[in-house]
Amino acid sequence: MPIVVDHDERRLQVAAVVEQLVYEAGIEGLTIRDVARRAKCSTSVVSHYFTSKLELLIFTHRAVRNRAERRLLDGLEQGRSLQSSIESLLPMSDETWREWHTWFAFWGMAPAEPTVNQEWQAGTADANSIFVRLLEAARQSGEAPADLDPVTGSVKLQVVINGIATLVSQDRAGWPGERQKSLLREMLAATLGIVPPVGR
Amino acid sequence: MPIVVDHDERRLQVAAVVEQLVYEAGIEGLTIRDVARRAKCSTSVVSHYFTSKLELLIFTHRAVRNRAERRLLDGLEQGRSLQSSIESLLPMSDETWREWHTWFAFWGMAPAEPTVNQEWQAGTADANSIFVRLLEAARQSGEAPADLDPVTGSVKLQVVINGIATLVSQDRAGWPGERQKSLLREMLAATLGIVPPVGR
Repeated sequence: MPIVVDHDERRLQVAAVVEQLVYEAGIEGLTIRDVARRAKCSTSVVSHYFTSKLELLIFTHRAVRNRAERRLLDGLEQGRSLQSSIESLLPMSDETWREWHTWFAFWGMAPAEPTVNQEWQAGTADANSIFVRLLEAARQSGEAPADLDPVTGSVKLQVVINGIATLVSQDRAGWPGERQKSLLREMLAATLGIVPPVGR
Repeated sequence: MPIVVDHDERRLQVAAVVEQLVYEAGIEGLTIRDVARRAKCSTSVVSHYFTSKLELLIFTHRAVRNRAERRLLDGLEQGRSLQSSIESLLPMSDETWREWHTWFAFWGMAPAEPTVNQEWQAGTADANSIFVRLLEAARQSGEAPADLDPVTGSVKLQVVINGIATLVSQDRAGWPGERQKSLLREMLAATLGIVPPVGR
């Protein structure tokens, strides 16, 4: 019997290849042929899973953000501090730097394309709703002030995270992890009154 | 006699075409042929001014950021408030939205490419040095606290500006100008103690 590869799993494997290729050569150089070669399959197999390069890129963006969202939700379940959860998003490793690279590349796609616009909105809205939950938990644990509004706070949290990531991405050597953590801590304190628990 | 078009001016004209094409169709769809067609010249003319698509994209990124830097320096000369100067950067018009789109697209290019990396670093460093000057002026005018350190402050200012722009770019309809200005004002107050003069 042939090995049955799950359809969704196969799509995720192809998305991982796309993420890596975009990281290596930029979105401007991506071809379906390169994707097929790297995924060790034919272009017709790639076309079986994705009807166009556009769909492939949108799926990749979604796969990468879902992975980051999963990390945040895991942190929530494990009772991690807000500071520590957000640190897991910042570009401090090859994996997270590649994630941010994928997002920037995707944000440079054509805004006139409706499916691109939908995925942009879904991405920022999904992230926002997770940040609301993180801020609610931080309020309950005492890490955030009791009077913090998680809804307006989550927007500021997004500004701080995305803003730090844009700087790091353009000057990776200038931003070792400790510098990122320290700026995050300062800015979360100033904008949201977040004080991480001692020892974190 | 033939009309002599200045070399630099011609390069800037081509860069404006690139900026517009990337805005319309994303960096992933850009071809030298499209650039030539839109610039109403032959591909060999484009190749005369730029040796590669990479050089063309880097020059475009630089041209767009130089234009934005010029706006900030003009604001400084005219004694505009910091809040007002920074508002001129945020994506509130077709022009500024296109600028941010160019930057995000460029940030998604290949980090392994040394010239891309150099332009990233130059872009963020040049912006940073202008922000230091803006904060020094804001301190002198009383808009910023006397004890504000412009060097560490300028990094936070970059985080706030870039962070707001990332959110707006993904949900333009959700971010009318007034909402951006209001969030900017709140975050500048919280992170840097900036209080814009009344009437601005």
